[in-house]
Amino acid sequence: MDLKATPSLGGAAAPAPLPDEELGHLDAYWRAANYLSVGQIYLLDNPLLREPLKPGHVKPRLLGHWGTSPGLNFIYVHLNRVIKAQDLDMIYVAGPGHGGPALVANTYLEGSYSEFYPDVTEDEAGLRRLFRQFSFPGGVGSHVTAETPGSIHEGGELGYALSHAFGAAFDNPELIVACVIGDGEAETGPLATAWHSNKFLNPARDGAVLPILHLNGYKIANPTLLARIDPRELDALLRGYGYAPRYVEGNDPAAMHRQMAVVLDEVIAEIRAIQAQARTQAATERPRWPMIVLRSPKGWTGPKEVDGKKTEGHFRSHQVPLAELHTNPDHLRQLESWLKSYRPDELFDENGRLRTELKALAPQGTRRMGANPHANGGLRLRGLKLPDCRAFAVAVPAPGAAQAESTRVMGQYLREVMRLNAEHRNFRVFGPDETASNRLGALFEVTGRAWMERTEPDDDHLAADGRVMEILSEHSCQGWLEGYLLTGRHGLFSCYEAFIHIVDSMFNQHAKWLKVSKAVPWRRPVASLNYLLTSHVWRQDHNGFSHQDPGFIDHVVNKKADVIRVYLPPDANTLLCVTECCLRSRDLVNVVVAGKQPQPQWLGMDAAIKHCTAGIGIWDWASNDDGDPDLVMACAGDAPTLETLAAVQILREHRPELKIRVVNVVDLMTLQPREEHPHGLSDRDFDTIFTTDKPILFAYHGYPWLVHRLTYRRTNHGNLHVRGYKEEGTTTTPFDMLVRNDMDRFHLVCDAIDRVPALGSRAASLRQAMRDRLIEHRAYITEHGEDPPDIRDWTWTA
Amino acid sequence: MDLKATPSLGGAAAPAPLPDEELGHLDAYWRAANYLSVGQIYLLDNPLLREPLKPGHVKPRLLGHWGTSPGLNFIYVHLNRVIKAQDLDMIYVAGPGHGGPALVANTYLEGSYSEFYPDVTEDEAGLRRLFRQFSFPGGVGSHVTAETPGSIHEGGELGYALSHAFGAAFDNPELIVACVIGDGEAETGPLATAWHSNKFLNPARDGAVLPILHLNGYKIANPTLLARIDPRELDALLRGYGYAPRYVEGNDPAAMHRQMAVVLDEVIAEIRAIQAQARTQAATERPRWPMIVLRSPKGWTGPKEVDGKKTEGHFRSHQVPLAELHTNPDHLRQLESWLKSYRPDELFDENGRLRTELKALAPQGTRRMGANPHANGGLRLRGLKLPDCRAFAVAVPAPGAAQAESTRVMGQYLREVMRLNAEHRNFRVFGPDETASNRLGALFEVTGRAWMERTEPDDDHLAADGRVMEILSEHSCQGWLEGYLLTGRHGLFSCYEAFIHIVDSMFNQHAKWLKVSKAVPWRRPVASLNYLLTSHVWRQDHNGFSHQDPGFIDHVVNKKADVIRVYLPPDANTLLCVTECCLRSRDLVNVVVAGKQPQPQWLGMDAAIKHCTAGIGIWDWASNDDGDPDLVMACAGDAPTLETLAAVQILREHRPELKIRVVNVVDLMTLQPREEHPHGLSDRDFDTIFTTDKPILFAYHGYPWLVHRLTYRRTNHGNLHVRGYKEEGTTTTPFDMLVRNDMDRFHLVCDAIDRVPALGSRAASLRQAMRDRLIEHRAYITEHGEDPPDIRDWTWTA
Repeated sequence: MDLKATPSLGGAAAPAPLPDEELGHLDAYWRAANYLSVGQIYLLDNPLLREPLKPGHVKPRLLGHWGTSPGLNFIYVHLNRVIKAQDLDMIYVAGPGHGGPALVANTYLEGSYSEFYPDVTEDEAGLRRLFRQFSFPGGVGSHVTAETPGSIHEGGELGYALSHAFGAAFDNPELIVACVIGDGEAETGPLATAWHSNKFLNPARDGAVLPILHLNGYKIANPTLLARIDPRELDALLRGYGYAPRYVEGNDPAAMHRQMAVVLDEVIAEIRAIQAQARTQAATERPRWPMIVLRSPKGWTGPKEVDGKKTEGHFRSHQVPLAELHTNPDHLRQLESWLKSYRPDELFDENGRLRTELKALAPQGTRRMGANPHANGGLRLRGLKLPDCRAFAVAVPAPGAAQAESTRVMGQYLREVMRLNAEHRNFRVFGPDETASNRLGALFEVTGRAWMERTEPDDDHLAADGRVMEILSEHSCQGWLEGYLLTGRHGLFSCYEAFIHIVDSMFNQHAKWLKVSKAVPWRRPVASLNYLLTSHVWRQDHNGFSHQDPGFIDHVVNKKADVIRVYLPPDANTLLCVTECCLRSRDLVNVVVAGKQPQPQWLGMDAAIKHCTAGIGIWDWASNDDGDPDLVMACAGDAPTLETLAAVQILREHRPELKIRVVNVVDLMTLQPREEHPHGLSDRDFDTIFTTDKPILFAYHGYPWLVHRLTYRRTNHGNLHVRGYKEEGTTTTPFDMLVRNDMDRFHLVCDAIDRVPALGSRAASLRQAMRDRLIEHRAYITEHGEDPPDIRDWTWTA
Repeated sequence: MDLKATPSLGGAAAPAPLPDEELGHLDAYWRAANYLSVGQIYLLDNPLLREPLKPGHVKPRLLGHWGTSPGLNFIYVHLNRVIKAQDLDMIYVAGPGHGGPALVANTYLEGSYSEFYPDVTEDEAGLRRLFRQFSFPGGVGSHVTAETPGSIHEGGELGYALSHAFGAAFDNPELIVACVIGDGEAETGPLATAWHSNKFLNPARDGAVLPILHLNGYKIANPTLLARIDPRELDALLRGYGYAPRYVEGNDPAAMHRQMAVVLDEVIAEIRAIQAQARTQAATERPRWPMIVLRSPKGWTGPKEVDGKKTEGHFRSHQVPLAELHTNPDHLRQLESWLKSYRPDELFDENGRLRTELKALAPQGTRRMGANPHANGGLRLRGLKLPDCRAFAVAVPAPGAAQAESTRVMGQYLREVMRLNAEHRNFRVFGPDETASNRLGALFEVTGRAWMERTEPDDDHLAADGRVMEILSEHSCQGWLEGYLLTGRHGLFSCYEAFIHIVDSMFNQHAKWLKVSKAVPWRRPVASLNYLLTSHVWRQDHNGFSHQDPGFIDHVVNKKADVIRVYLPPDANTLLCVTECCLRSRDLVNVVVAGKQPQPQWLGMDAAIKHCTAGIGIWDWASNDDGDPDLVMACAGDAPTLETLAAVQILREHRPELKIRVVNVVDLMTLQPREEHPHGLSDRDFDTIFTTDKPILFAYHGYPWLVHRLTYRRTNHGNLHVRGYKEEGTTTTPFDMLVRNDMDRFHLVCDAIDRVPALGSRAASLRQAMRDRLIEHRAYITEHGEDPPDIRDWTWTA
């Protein structure tokens, strides 16, 4: 059998560390991967072309992306070579995830695919199935989805390859994450700043990321910037980012194989040298990590021209270079000769199985990138040792009889989580320069902020081995954390509430990943993605309107109920309970919203645990309804809870005959029907709490309509009146923020009066008193610039 | 009067193109700006320190950001110098927008502030008011908000300074946009890629952007990356981005003034030379634009130490370096001596007015950056010449009797808009490499894609004077468009529906800007921000689940009703009407969702205009209810409309006795109560259309709960049943996408049956038939990989 590579191989004259025979095998393996990529896009049947290609063999709808696939295959084949030669622990992040056919092809060739999907056998029938299922109803997606072995990165929405790769490499000292970055993706903002992740990766402690910038020159219909700028600019840019780039450029396969082999050997050696130096000499200076720039034609080895138009090396290769195969016999012939150019008969034996001598090129067992356990992170997941949250409880002798900053208390808990898990190095806290601002500073008693740059004497807790990850890029924080979680570790992202919207789309993709991965039998559960949203809408004293936006909750609850949770703990002890619950959970996105300012505490620890376990409850100590209220006053969120209690206090003082039930909601999803969300209350329980016919006044942390959206099917929805943030804000006092949004105690009292007709004429004087209080407040803050003492210092006195 | 600068001035020995006297004046002006910045943060009264500073003169709540302010002031003062010397047309984009005190101070000093706010007079009373209002209830925000003269960029959420600046510079050949980029902001993704905007700016046609990277070294609690990396790396990075950086570095004011003056003269000369060459020789190669790196201490000229801790040149200067002024007399004395270090008596005359010789340093009239009309873009807005959309109408002899791709038709309209306004150069179309994919390719008949890099023979419509802006960065597209609109021009952003979430937070900030600017009397209306969202959730055949997300609409409707609009035109002619309406509108964000695939057309142009004018309507031609329906079948969006009609057809064929009313919604906000949204239907009109008691089956483009949220107050809400996208997707056929989300015709028929009890036993057989059809469909697509012909080719036959 002839394993000489494609004809052009003969022409190369570069120095050849790669023996010709090995080169021939590599090229053959690459041809096999390319063949399988094209086959997936086009073929329904006749997978080995053992009969002449007929229209009936071709899929009726041609979907998928050829353009990037041969480059992805080329890289995979060469990575296999170094993995096998040096027994490397490596995973593959395919930024151009729409090159799904390439990753499916390679995991199939190495055998991991058939292990995960036994139906897709390594024979002609398996090949037929492999081809048919791609982008086919009931089959597999066209991207490197959660169904794809070896993937932690779907890559449909571009921008996150490099931050995912760094997240995977943190705390995995033996791992090398090869990260292919398409030159399209390289134009996105998140990717453009993710290069700076190298400033946070410690070669002594962490693994390595090998960025491979793949310049194939084109996007959907445009050239790419990085492929067209002066190569000297490109080189300066990459060096400016702190890398030492090496270039593999051309289109002649043999020459390219030789170049790539040499360069890969060099960069692996360099990575090993950097690591050895860091690990033996405890060097803390950031090294210039190597990277590769691979410049190869888009749609490499595909049709040179289609209908007289340049196709290989052009954006016309982006998706499906040949179309109308059922009606255009020329195209059908061209497809057949394209497929045959890979010489499938040389690659697959009579049963359709990859020939043994090629099979031998793939690594074995878990060294295969499709079977590397890092890419199925749940396999490696070790649960966190969690301290008992009772140990951090704020003493609350009576409701309101203590003050605390909720997130500061949480910080003490996180400090202990950090300490208890230090030896396993599987927990990090992420945030855009806000860990201290968000009052989680206790963490710095046990760890520092990861930092590999120069330090100065007055720096605050910068450390090469820090486990708090701070960069002023929400995208990088989110991407790092996702990569860290998907490789089997734990973390928390604390962020200003308004600016978490910066990663809305990243959250979307992660939530989608979780939904799909839960249905993939071999994917093991991973730790949940935990958000602490603080510096929230009601307390943006320094910043104002631009920093006021509670809409991330609305965004989150659009995703599948079985992957999302939203918690609004009203005080420190409930925040502790919720934090512990989130850190124990798996395969979820948990959103926790809690303030950082001093505020009254409501529940002692036992009560907090009970309340959080239920997720919602009647606060008897604040209620006087004896089981039959005139009015239900519900609240969710710390600011609304305080304000509701203040309103209740006024009502009870002035209208003691009014029977009020106070309901507090910690777990927002309890409001949804049980059929819609696993945490949803049954209608019976909901009706018991909210009644079926009494007015409900609900003070909610965010946009009020969300509560309507969650409850519109409930019996008593018609009596529900919700107050919340209605996009009125500026730089003003905390209480004035509530006033502007009609959620202050005085407005709530008026709302209550309006909803209890039984109060009759006795209501008028109270309403007038509330209006007077609002006018007095306005006058006071206009004069003094702060809220009056009776509001600042208000406490609950039952 | 002594106008010698701060004492350290004497020490500088650099060559001095700046005469000492001018330097002294410049420094004095800078001191005045710094004084006013500190005063705004701290003082309630005693604005000129004409009596000893007492606690009562100090604000009770200290809010604001000092750290960046002296640098912003330094830059402003020096820009004033070159504006005045060379009569430049310049605006100032302050990336660190939280340095609001600096911009307010400077516009006050130059006089523009008092012109816009006559109450804030140029005397001691005005100073008192200026100080007091800052971050004070009822006063002005702490950021460079819409209330700040000269601002087009609030800068609260970091990342967008540079893309805004480029957007402002496009098509403004005489304008120079000075853009200050904080080193914190420089870490964000959107900013990191916005540097590449220079590849799209044509020096012959566009103005110039002068980036000023301000390295003050610190964020909130961390050093910044770009300030700490090796300066050679920084230089390589900036050169890699395509700029020629010049450095102004130090902390000695005199030396810094001299350096800055020299460098600014040089860069302005260089900009002029680049422009002259491009404009006389029609050079199309991208120049290496100059930029400035200003390295100065954070909190420059502020307290060196506070309580023994380093403060100037440290992150402790970020917000308020001195606190507890009411209780700490040492701090109060330190504040007084800090303020006095600027020597206010030398700066302001006995009335509190800036001394004449300093006043003379500011430019005059509209050359003042606070009064430049570009920064109040509505002043410069010229309405687009819009073609009559009738000229582009698709002929629709009868409903369903024509096929068209809606966005392709829209593309023809946009081509004419582009052509008609070519001479005024005030219209551009933005999109991340998707203009052709989204079938707006007709634009390329009259313009190209802006592109300043190398071209190759097979490139497609790349042109240095192109007006289609394509970069694979939704952030850059959005930022450019915002900058373009806020300086008085028009545009449209076309994007894949799912990926518009990438700019959720940018949309938030723009919507907030619009809300605030509408309340600023001197801000003139600007053109609306128009989104075309296509390649939508129902037609992601090539990509699958990661590309399926209709949630941007949900995100948008959280913002103030008077700035947002959402349109779901069901076919090409309605899309034309909506497009024309959006391009005429002002101060809005318009979201238009429309598909690009061939589909039946429902309305001729007259009917489309009528329908769009109402925004919602009963389609009589599809209804048989004679004013008294058994069932209302409503739809919004092109896919739901088609599917609803297909279901209606089945129902009418099999149960002709069932009286069905078909309602189509183009303008989603008609569903909201009129009290909530200006386009909302009155309850009476809503009830007339939807009835008060008949079942409503609503097929909606996006997440179904949004329709509930918009309608929960309507009389008939209890009878409303909504189908929509419920986060079920993959790579599959178009019809299977509907099936997976229960919104296909067969499910809709079953839903209808379930909701009309009058059908009684006659329902069972039809329900069974629908189930059979679903099973047949499943079998067909599993076999063939595409939808059966009777579904693909279905047309309405009334």
